[in-house]
Amino acid sequence: MAAPGTPARRSDRVTLGCVAKLAPRVIAGTLIDSADITPEELQLAVRNHSMPLEAMQYDITPVGLHYLLIHFDIPSVDVATWELTVGGHVERSLKIDYDEIRSRPATTTAVTLECAGNGRARLSPRPLSQPWLSEAVGTAEWTGTPLRGLLEEAGLHDGAVEVVFTGLDRGVQGGIDQQYERSLGVEAAMRDEVLLAWAINGEPLPPQHGYPLRLIVPGWYGMTSVKWLRAITVVDHRFDGYQQATAYHFRTALGDAGEAVTRMRPRALMVPPGIPDFMTRIRFVEPGVHVIRGRAWSGQGAITKVELSDDGGRRWSEAALGESPSAYAWRGWTCKWAAEPGEHELCVRASDSAGNVQPVDQGWNLEGVENNAVQRVTVMAGSAEGGAQPAADRTAG
Amino acid sequence: MAAPGTPARRSDRVTLGCVAKLAPRVIAGTLIDSADITPEELQLAVRNHSMPLEAMQYDITPVGLHYLLIHFDIPSVDVATWELTVGGHVERSLKIDYDEIRSRPATTTAVTLECAGNGRARLSPRPLSQPWLSEAVGTAEWTGTPLRGLLEEAGLHDGAVEVVFTGLDRGVQGGIDQQYERSLGVEAAMRDEVLLAWAINGEPLPPQHGYPLRLIVPGWYGMTSVKWLRAITVVDHRFDGYQQATAYHFRTALGDAGEAVTRMRPRALMVPPGIPDFMTRIRFVEPGVHVIRGRAWSGQGAITKVELSDDGGRRWSEAALGESPSAYAWRGWTCKWAAEPGEHELCVRASDSAGNVQPVDQGWNLEGVENNAVQRVTVMAGSAEGGAQPAADRTAG
Repeated sequence: MAAPGTPARRSDRVTLGCVAKLAPRVIAGTLIDSADITPEELQLAVRNHSMPLEAMQYDITPVGLHYLLIHFDIPSVDVATWELTVGGHVERSLKIDYDEIRSRPATTTAVTLECAGNGRARLSPRPLSQPWLSEAVGTAEWTGTPLRGLLEEAGLHDGAVEVVFTGLDRGVQGGIDQQYERSLGVEAAMRDEVLLAWAINGEPLPPQHGYPLRLIVPGWYGMTSVKWLRAITVVDHRFDGYQQATAYHFRTALGDAGEAVTRMRPRALMVPPGIPDFMTRIRFVEPGVHVIRGRAWSGQGAITKVELSDDGGRRWSEAALGESPSAYAWRGWTCKWAAEPGEHELCVRASDSAGNVQPVDQGWNLEGVENNAVQRVTVMAGSAEGGAQPAADRTAG
Repeated sequence: MAAPGTPARRSDRVTLGCVAKLAPRVIAGTLIDSADITPEELQLAVRNHSMPLEAMQYDITPVGLHYLLIHFDIPSVDVATWELTVGGHVERSLKIDYDEIRSRPATTTAVTLECAGNGRARLSPRPLSQPWLSEAVGTAEWTGTPLRGLLEEAGLHDGAVEVVFTGLDRGVQGGIDQQYERSLGVEAAMRDEVLLAWAINGEPLPPQHGYPLRLIVPGWYGMTSVKWLRAITVVDHRFDGYQQATAYHFRTALGDAGEAVTRMRPRALMVPPGIPDFMTRIRFVEPGVHVIRGRAWSGQGAITKVELSDDGGRRWSEAALGESPSAYAWRGWTCKWAAEPGEHELCVRASDSAGNVQPVDQGWNLEGVENNAVQRVTVMAGSAEGGAQPAADRTAG
């Protein structure tokens, strides 16, 4: 494995001939017609978790509830030897250690991050990859230093086109032995809000969130916010690494050039009301008026409207909008709902200032990215008649 | 929903008649013949996560990597109104608030917790429930006060048989509206190591680990360590709540009384060597000697032996045993492995001082509990010949 702090340019990796032999078994992206999940998807689901929907009640998601998507293994980094290099098409290369990076000007911002594949498991046919339902999201307070300061210190040469971010996480994807790498155009990289973050919710990053340092790109889907950063490389061309040029594109047919995935589409989620059934997650409430609460966000504009439906998306009621922890974080909303006895399908949809509205009907694309179809929650409102025996009558005491 | 601090005895829950209507759809425990995972299991898998196997390298599992199994929703508790009651078959009932509980004599112990359903997804046919693979485990340092002190203060009446622990989490399981409740026999409850814990790894409990207070029962499967504790009730009979008398039994046929699940069977896990393929999680290593590392634990005795096999469990090599963070936590081990070019199936198995040895072959029971069949990791050792192009040659720079 590469030593921490070694830039990706150095060919410190052996040739793993066996990667080629695996090729016939690399099935990411295969389309599956069944609603059932393959054992390969389950392996990803048991290690990468979404945010339990009831955590939508917190402005700032507690660590451990924030969603996680890790392509390879979580690296274990010794900060005594870790170093960030800034190089490539710059006037002066930099090497920065853990103490130095934390001594730079710091800012703290609440940022909502969402996985680009959120909602993938609802597609039919379903592209094989991490099988997310609707809740691959979280909002954390990230503390770090603006990337721009570092890039200005290094001095970009004329002709700089993109900035490449290399993580310490390494594995095989699409038959290619790679370290996780993504790029940003120079203009996007120089925006004020782009951070190199060393703390989450006031604490050092835990291993799974990119310790010791990660990129945070507010407004963009999470694959952009490279974790376990070891190198920043300015290049004079479009970066063609696997995670940039092959993966994370919206394509509806094989062979399409497709559209690169960038900023988050709008999405609203509700805290499912009442209590759940363990296995089906169907909800039970008492008949009567309930206040449904949730959050909504978009990376393409401010949230301007949230609507709730209790009939699967035919009729909509407008929710009251609340506060955001920051300009880059989700916005709270509440909506009263009068629950009649019986079964209901609650849906919620968000609109943003760029004119985007969440679709009620399921879209489809080859990778299952940017799927922001509305959340659907089945709720049963109980009647006093014909009821089951409440558990309280049969508990000990 | 019940107010924090209200003991389960008070009938503060409405009758949700609709619970009865759900009954035909309650499918937990249904047996599934396919290796594919149902959408209902996926809903559980995206919210309850296991410990990524590479986290086996840490003596103490960082918060956020420790496994989680939450039957219903994660309650949000206001400690200003939260109260623990101790009552039932005692001389004096107690009400204890958050400040009071934390002012009691405290101890800190490293404890390995494992879900009783760990390994369930490997069974065929598979019982519908949380679809764990092999890694529903974690080791944390729990800080709290011995339960015994509280029980002695309350004073158990003669004829006390069990102690019932009631959590604030409520939902429907097996068609029954319930709060999560489990019991311990008086003798087990009075053991020195049983704690009421308010901190994990030196920090207050996060919501998902039972804030503000949870039970920790070292050596037992995790379902025993009730989270979000609100009531402790001493009873003069065997508690017959759903999670105690119906669920968590080892049964091989419907209608069997079965054996109650209690202490953890032995299990060893390895950190999978090398680097993974994103989708299949198959591992790639360089040919040559590797040191394979991992942990092993048992709730039934001390770990006495760990063995590694590279041929799927036919021949075994004995591993060197390392240290444990405590008598109630896993024990480290290492084993050298000479990787020949080609494909291998690594297995590891543990033995304990009670004479238990992990089975190589998959067992089976109706709930998929206590399944400690050996971990299997497919590893490909690369050769220098016929290799794929390493990614380093095609990265930016």
